[in-house]
Amino acid sequence: MIDKLCIIGVGLIGGSLARDLKRLGACREVVGCSRNRDNLQRALELGVIDSFSTDIARAVEGADMVVLAVPLEAMQSVFQGINETLSPQAVVTDAGSSKCSVLRAAEAVFSTIPAWFVPGHPIAGAEKSGVEASVDDLFVDHRVILTPVEETGSDALERVRAMWLRVGAEVIEMEPHHHDEVLAATSHLPHMLAYTLVDVLGRMHDRVEIFRYAAGGFRDFTRIASSDPHMWHDVCLANRDAMIGVLENFSGDLEQLIAAVKRGDGDYLFEVFTRAKAFRDRFNQNGSGSGTDN
Amino acid sequence: MIDKLCIIGVGLIGGSLARDLKRLGACREVVGCSRNRDNLQRALELGVIDSFSTDIARAVEGADMVVLAVPLEAMQSVFQGINETLSPQAVVTDAGSSKCSVLRAAEAVFSTIPAWFVPGHPIAGAEKSGVEASVDDLFVDHRVILTPVEETGSDALERVRAMWLRVGAEVIEMEPHHHDEVLAATSHLPHMLAYTLVDVLGRMHDRVEIFRYAAGGFRDFTRIASSDPHMWHDVCLANRDAMIGVLENFSGDLEQLIAAVKRGDGDYLFEVFTRAKAFRDRFNQNGSGSGTDN
Repeated sequence: MIDKLCIIGVGLIGGSLARDLKRLGACREVVGCSRNRDNLQRALELGVIDSFSTDIARAVEGADMVVLAVPLEAMQSVFQGINETLSPQAVVTDAGSSKCSVLRAAEAVFSTIPAWFVPGHPIAGAEKSGVEASVDDLFVDHRVILTPVEETGSDALERVRAMWLRVGAEVIEMEPHHHDEVLAATSHLPHMLAYTLVDVLGRMHDRVEIFRYAAGGFRDFTRIASSDPHMWHDVCLANRDAMIGVLENFSGDLEQLIAAVKRGDGDYLFEVFTRAKAFRDRFNQNGSGSGTDN
Repeated sequence: MIDKLCIIGVGLIGGSLARDLKRLGACREVVGCSRNRDNLQRALELGVIDSFSTDIARAVEGADMVVLAVPLEAMQSVFQGINETLSPQAVVTDAGSSKCSVLRAAEAVFSTIPAWFVPGHPIAGAEKSGVEASVDDLFVDHRVILTPVEETGSDALERVRAMWLRVGAEVIEMEPHHHDEVLAATSHLPHMLAYTLVDVLGRMHDRVEIFRYAAGGFRDFTRIASSDPHMWHDVCLANRDAMIGVLENFSGDLEQLIAAVKRGDGDYLFEVFTRAKAFRDRFNQNGSGSGTDN
């Protein structure tokens, strides 16, 4: 049971988590905090939070669980903001989609990774943002990846794990660097491809017509290009190292495919398509992942 | 009203068209033809066709409507096969997803484009193939693009248009070359990206784990990588010229994005993502395309 939950960043993730914990009776009180007073006011009206403050230092006072659901770029200033007033009993976790950068931000502020900080990433984003996008049961059957480091306290880890299990998530542990590589491959790279594709087509001179004849497959393929540009700007900068690796892998393979199309090398193309179909069909059979990628 | 409909290639497209025309009473008799006797036997059992022949020349005898729903690579040999026995009253159309190559195949056999041939492309494919994949009402609210040329007879065009309207499709006319460019951009390029992405990830050493953590966004994004490798092998070779253009456009833009990630150029990235999101959101509002791309 959480006594006082402080959600910093009351958007899709922070808002949905607060909703569930309150509804399930898993916390006594929720304090919201963000720089956007209108959003906080709306969260209050919706009953997602019980009170709010735009002052981080005040918001975390007396909280025993603090969740940082802010853009990656804001993490370091949030750590600075909670530094003075955080309760000694508090546990802090985050929801950032890149973990090494969040750990670097914590280290920059606290000079070491505090035992009370548990890096986390709920894989449950969507193309919408803001408290209006928050829903009940967002995390049911979705994965939450926790990436504890040596310094992480086992009590803190257990309390964060218990919180996510309470809202129906499947909790997994992973090494931070490995998390960033896996996410770069399965989420960040597809987002870059979808954004680039839609941008290329949109800038073609007959763009209106091109989109007019695009069908269902195109709709699914490009859905993630509607994601929040601010968030993805941050992800690119925060998870740069892991992303460059997979982007270059992809780009090298694409060049080879283009060369094969140019020389009419049907065998090469058939081989790539067959291998990819086999991987994709196997992925589908395993029924992995029900949520929207983040 | 079609008297004798001959479907060459009784798979998803050919089988679904035969089902609808029979069910709606829009044709008296359906003859199926393909090289795969087992598939034809199954089509007969399912009631999709009334009779079959594995001999193209015999199958088209007496037919007043002939639909070529075969792989692009087979078009030329099918034209050769129907050459001798096609009825003077017959109209022929096809369902190939590249139009210039089909016109070239017709020209190679008949030295000119026959007035009775109407090139067509129903945008209603899926990841499944064979007569077992055929369904009722596949074409309802889906687009069928017809690409008549100067030589095309207006009576032939009207008969093919009427057939597709009868099964609920929206029929559109387009210049063949333009069709190939639009489809290269909105369908062929996304398929190449999905195949390449899944192949790159599948070959990464920790592939099982990577697919394990992939979520819903990844599932949608890569669904088209389950498409038939044979068909896409043919599309790549048939629509090579138009595809090279869009592949190189995409690849050039991706290189620029990678360079921006490398130098940490957040402004560039934010600009691309914002522009793409605006294009994608507009596409979504227009509600374009309900079907699966082909």
